[in-house]
Amino acid sequence: MSDDALPLLDKLIHERARMGIMSLLAGGGEMSFSELRGDLGLTDGNLSVHLKTLQKAGYLAVTKTYRKRRPHTTCSLTPEGRTAFEAYIDQLEEIVRRARGSRAPEGGS
Amino acid sequence: MSDDALPLLDKLIHERARMGIMSLLAGGGEMSFSELRGDLGLTDGNLSVHLKTLQKAGYLAVTKTYRKRRPHTTCSLTPEGRTAFEAYIDQLEEIVRRARGSRAPEGGS
Repeated sequence: MSDDALPLLDKLIHERARMGIMSLLAGGGEMSFSELRGDLGLTDGNLSVHLKTLQKAGYLAVTKTYRKRRPHTTCSLTPEGRTAFEAYIDQLEEIVRRARGSRAPEGGS
Repeated sequence: MSDDALPLLDKLIHERARMGIMSLLAGGGEMSFSELRGDLGLTDGNLSVHLKTLQKAGYLAVTKTYRKRRPHTTCSLTPEGRTAFEAYIDQLEEIVRRARGSRAPEGGS
């Protein structure tokens, strides 16, 4: 019954790869597709799918341009994305706080 | 490339319902099936599947007894489960710390 038990963590952000994307963009401002791919160790297809999911949610702005005649894709968080990520981080912090509060007191082996 | 980008969050715990189960048991010691179901708002089937997953991973001890001739199931974390949950919480804490560090400095809108 208690509503506190399961925080309504944003499913869109909670998925590990997307959490990685959001974290990097929250820290790094704007990143290219290949930077994200390199940092996260994802395949092209996998990264594309996750970017599309975040873009559809309105969390991500994707800009396609050309550099030396090659397509160049950059991603950044939208204001909504930043707000959602901060709310998510607040919830994680609360989970950590509670877990720390309930840590077993004994020091044993 | 940077290994820090995507912490290797334990998939078994990261799923939201299982994170809820682990959190409750880390705090509450031992809980019955119906207590968990009530606190998490999960269906019987859904809770059963997640408990089985955690049990198979060695994170959860499930005890079946009878109370007033009715089956009574209780769950608690194993020492491995507690260790895994604490490692997971450490990682969440690190994610929160980094996100706080990279929060946009302006006080906007």
